[in-house]
Amino acid sequence: MGNAPQQAPIVNHTFPSPSKTPLLDQVVDPHALRRLEPTQLRQLADELRSETIDAVSVTGGHLGAGLGVVELTVALHYVFNTPDDRIIWDVGHQAYPHKILTGRRDRIRTLRQAGGLSGFTKRTESEYDPFGAAHSSTSISAGLGMAVARDLDGRKNNVVAVIGDGAMSAGMAYEAMNNAGAMDSRLIVILNDNDMSIAPPVGAMSAYLSRLLSGRTYLTLRDIGKQVTGHLPKRLDRTITRAVEHARGFLTGGTLFEELGFTYVGPIDGHNLEHLLPVLKNVRDGQAGPVLIHVVTQKGKGYAPAEASADKYHGVNTFDVVTGAQAKPKANAPSYTRVFADSLIKAARADDRIVAVTAAMPSGTGLDLFGKEFPTRTFDVGIAEQHAVTFAAGLATEGYKPFCAIYSTFLQRAYDQVVHDVAIQGLPVRFAIDRAGLVGADGATHAGSFDVAYLGCLPDMVVMAAADEVELVHMTATAVAYDRGPIAFRYPRGEGVGLDLPEVGTVLEIGKGRVVREGSRIALLSLGTRLAECLKAADDLAAMGLSTTVADARFAKPLDAVLVERLAREHEVLITVEEGSIGGFGSFVLHHLAEVGALDKGLRVRSLVLPDVWLDHDKPERMYAQAGLDARGIVAKALEALGRDESAAAKAASLIA
Amino acid sequence: MGNAPQQAPIVNHTFPSPSKTPLLDQVVDPHALRRLEPTQLRQLADELRSETIDAVSVTGGHLGAGLGVVELTVALHYVFNTPDDRIIWDVGHQAYPHKILTGRRDRIRTLRQAGGLSGFTKRTESEYDPFGAAHSSTSISAGLGMAVARDLDGRKNNVVAVIGDGAMSAGMAYEAMNNAGAMDSRLIVILNDNDMSIAPPVGAMSAYLSRLLSGRTYLTLRDIGKQVTGHLPKRLDRTITRAVEHARGFLTGGTLFEELGFTYVGPIDGHNLEHLLPVLKNVRDGQAGPVLIHVVTQKGKGYAPAEASADKYHGVNTFDVVTGAQAKPKANAPSYTRVFADSLIKAARADDRIVAVTAAMPSGTGLDLFGKEFPTRTFDVGIAEQHAVTFAAGLATEGYKPFCAIYSTFLQRAYDQVVHDVAIQGLPVRFAIDRAGLVGADGATHAGSFDVAYLGCLPDMVVMAAADEVELVHMTATAVAYDRGPIAFRYPRGEGVGLDLPEVGTVLEIGKGRVVREGSRIALLSLGTRLAECLKAADDLAAMGLSTTVADARFAKPLDAVLVERLAREHEVLITVEEGSIGGFGSFVLHHLAEVGALDKGLRVRSLVLPDVWLDHDKPERMYAQAGLDARGIVAKALEALGRDESAAAKAASLIA
Repeated sequence: MGNAPQQAPIVNHTFPSPSKTPLLDQVVDPHALRRLEPTQLRQLADELRSETIDAVSVTGGHLGAGLGVVELTVALHYVFNTPDDRIIWDVGHQAYPHKILTGRRDRIRTLRQAGGLSGFTKRTESEYDPFGAAHSSTSISAGLGMAVARDLDGRKNNVVAVIGDGAMSAGMAYEAMNNAGAMDSRLIVILNDNDMSIAPPVGAMSAYLSRLLSGRTYLTLRDIGKQVTGHLPKRLDRTITRAVEHARGFLTGGTLFEELGFTYVGPIDGHNLEHLLPVLKNVRDGQAGPVLIHVVTQKGKGYAPAEASADKYHGVNTFDVVTGAQAKPKANAPSYTRVFADSLIKAARADDRIVAVTAAMPSGTGLDLFGKEFPTRTFDVGIAEQHAVTFAAGLATEGYKPFCAIYSTFLQRAYDQVVHDVAIQGLPVRFAIDRAGLVGADGATHAGSFDVAYLGCLPDMVVMAAADEVELVHMTATAVAYDRGPIAFRYPRGEGVGLDLPEVGTVLEIGKGRVVREGSRIALLSLGTRLAECLKAADDLAAMGLSTTVADARFAKPLDAVLVERLAREHEVLITVEEGSIGGFGSFVLHHLAEVGALDKGLRVRSLVLPDVWLDHDKPERMYAQAGLDARGIVAKALEALGRDESAAAKAASLIA
Repeated sequence: MGNAPQQAPIVNHTFPSPSKTPLLDQVVDPHALRRLEPTQLRQLADELRSETIDAVSVTGGHLGAGLGVVELTVALHYVFNTPDDRIIWDVGHQAYPHKILTGRRDRIRTLRQAGGLSGFTKRTESEYDPFGAAHSSTSISAGLGMAVARDLDGRKNNVVAVIGDGAMSAGMAYEAMNNAGAMDSRLIVILNDNDMSIAPPVGAMSAYLSRLLSGRTYLTLRDIGKQVTGHLPKRLDRTITRAVEHARGFLTGGTLFEELGFTYVGPIDGHNLEHLLPVLKNVRDGQAGPVLIHVVTQKGKGYAPAEASADKYHGVNTFDVVTGAQAKPKANAPSYTRVFADSLIKAARADDRIVAVTAAMPSGTGLDLFGKEFPTRTFDVGIAEQHAVTFAAGLATEGYKPFCAIYSTFLQRAYDQVVHDVAIQGLPVRFAIDRAGLVGADGATHAGSFDVAYLGCLPDMVVMAAADEVELVHMTATAVAYDRGPIAFRYPRGEGVGLDLPEVGTVLEIGKGRVVREGSRIALLSLGTRLAECLKAADDLAAMGLSTTVADARFAKPLDAVLVERLAREHEVLITVEEGSIGGFGSFVLHHLAEVGALDKGLRVRSLVLPDVWLDHDKPERMYAQAGLDARGIVAKALEALGRDESAAAKAASLIA
């Protein structure tokens, strides 16, 4: 790369002939797109849809959402002058067609693969991605920031945030609308109403959107003309606008958004380019203040297997394009998610105080299974983690045993609620933290790296991590039994190691770890599922004549002080191992050792944590290797601590590889 | 206490005679209140107001909010069967009258004092406080949890959440309404519209509420009869309700809330007991689903100095009841808040890319001063920390230099936004973290204990802490200059140490600390304002013949590895000192020392952090002593590390006290 002479022959990148996508082949970027005639866009959309399906059939990933916005993607890049005009895709998982149109078609079959395109929007990937995402409901806030910056600069470009109806249940979206609605900045919000985020929609906003549609047909071209010319060239005083609407009989015509200060346009058929184009052109220039365009789309649109599927192929494995049959991942063991759900269901049969709360992730957390058996004790509050946690706190004050099942990365959304509403009050809310640690293809935005650090610093919080699926059964039972305050247990994405599961979990003693293997010279103290790699590392070290103890801490907090001190006292080397950031379990161990003077006379102590960088999406095994959190990395660290020189360590490591 | 024989004479607790509050004297609890005649309530309210003013004149605290809800407090406890019926005061700073009526009058002059009543609601304080608070906008979520628990139990009690209009800008309140509006649980939300939270109201919701009031008079008794009988005994189908409303001409009658699934009643004059009582009685029993009562009150009502004040005596020092003159705190130096604001203003004169964002705390953060000079570059987004941070991220993408000034404890509300929208994208948002560390009278809910831990675990985050006000000037300058990613700097509540301030701040080298005093045997490595205590401790240690180095780390992240290693190498004892939780700066130092092998051969290292308990409100000096973070505690820790026995250490400590 760089200055190296380019000696390889120039490859003529041609598409197979006759191409199935002749028009798309010419559209190398949005500038080329904008040179097409409007009448060509239908064909382009069809080709773009076909290309999206084909690409995802190879890579797996999010399919339904992208298929729903094919026409919208074409229309936006046709009408708006991207990248000067900013398009912000909320969540970003629907942006595959957008990536194809914005110069990334040549890499679209690397989606979510190591070194390939991200499954979400990403600023470092393209100037056409002005804001990266992956978590929901951020687009209006970011867009308002861009719009305000434009106004300060005296520029005239447009800012468009495209947000799904599911994302509208998040408080963050409301906060942004509340702010935007009181400002004069031009901001275009496109509400992509597909009545289906991942799970069926919940909440009053969703019901409101349904009412907006019920008994009404889409705006006709004639309506569009009337509405947009009435509203948009010069923004009318809102009171007058509303009065006019009422007089016209638009009694439910987006009043809620109008009351929040937005001009409302819609509903529009989001698959009809003849309707999309004039509306977008009309809002493109000139009006003051924020406008909301209510576009109705169908998730999975145009691909029969997706349209027929319950989740509209939200997230898929690789699949056969013709039949839609998805490759089944080779599952050797039930997933941690499933083990948690089954354990909770069994416990709930015996204890009717157990209730479960999810924030729009019933299937991802396994609470769909719980809900089938206990529908009145299961609460899906929508994409609303803040509310989920404090709602659970309210349930706890009345003597219920709420289990809040939230991914590690999404619990960040409810951090203050965990601190202020749960922990300070000592309320026994149970946090089932799924997707803790690295997550593979979803990348840095979904990694659950920080939970032990951000929960472990809170007084009186109990934080556990399951070493395997049997431990998860025990920890679920422990959380059921523990009633003295908040308790959290974390477990990773994916399947367990294939152990036989006990019929009933054992209630663990709070703050007590266990020694899994006794040794004498080196101690490996693991928190969570890296335990298996610690055992492998111990085998390898033993083969080198280095007797190794392996312990499972089980609790990051409260720390098993007796175990930690014993390991320090009886070994030459102590290494903590965890799949989490600095500031977590390893830090607590070091702090305790320092405090009791165990470091005063020397201890070869090391703390293996996730590296202090944002890890891009990759295969988990490679990510562990990169992080030094596999057996080889643990062995190398032990040798380094023992003072064996680098080459010896490297040699030893290569011997056991 | 406990079993000790009670030998003291029994004091006859009588009120001065003739009492200024004869009726209130009889109302020892809500049961006694409910035995009064309705006609006596006006007098009771007047006495309660007078008692509230008198109490706060002695203690200082939140006054305006409580005065605004005196009649509402009386009416709620009169109509509802507390504590079986739950009343949840959002934020809780308006609950002083509630505390007086619920058995805490005898301690009301201990408000916010050590060992006295909390300035907010608190579960451990009274069964009449079903949910503690202090941060805003949590009440609807908690209330919905309680309502759902009641339904699961088959109980019939009422749940009432009282929330201010300012709190309605927070996404959390919307998330809760969105969830409640789609459920059938009976929940009463009282929107206490006083058009004034701390600062003037902002946002579209606030504008909407103003429109609801504009041009309308309060509901008359006749209206109330019509509205409540029409709506409430049996809940009408919402569509019909809306149609009826429209037909009646209630075109803006709370439509937004109705659309979100709430039955809307109002507006009601919140100081008129004759209006409050029948409305509350009507909603008390029987209706399904959630209802919102829009009550209009006046902050500071009934106390002329408060009514006349711009902030309605939101938070006051002790004051003279007759004149309203507040005691001035003895200020020897400008506050950190002021120093930050002045520094930023100076920088902004030279750099028009600097913009400032606050979440409803313009005066608390000093951004009111910035806003006076740069109104178009100052953004108060309302109580909406999540949006504030991502809005700032949007500004940063366009080349602006946003300063997000948020208290440490409130930044917890935006943790995911810091992670996902700012840090992962490496956007140069500047976080000015005020109220870091202990805060005194506001107690655990407002303490800024966790920011170094929850920010320091994020890759590429720069985290600074100012040792004094001069350092804060430098750090503000550093944040202006730093453009490679996010940067945060923390500083405490209250005044600086009185140093002369430089005209212009120096841009600090990122990740470099400084040695303040050279010694040889003990090293104290401070982060933040505990530096002064470290210097005192060094004096004391030197007096004992223990030569002590004192260093100011300046950066929690990136760590000054050279400095840390040098201190470890050249000293017998190394003690880190910070006003933050475990998992922060001290942990990073220990982790680094372990990693480089500096602990292998022994180091007497200790890490002084805030104790791992929730510290109640108290005087800061006592809290530092309790935490061991004053000079005496630091000395004691150094002696302990040196292996001097407890009695020697205690003796030494007593010598220097």
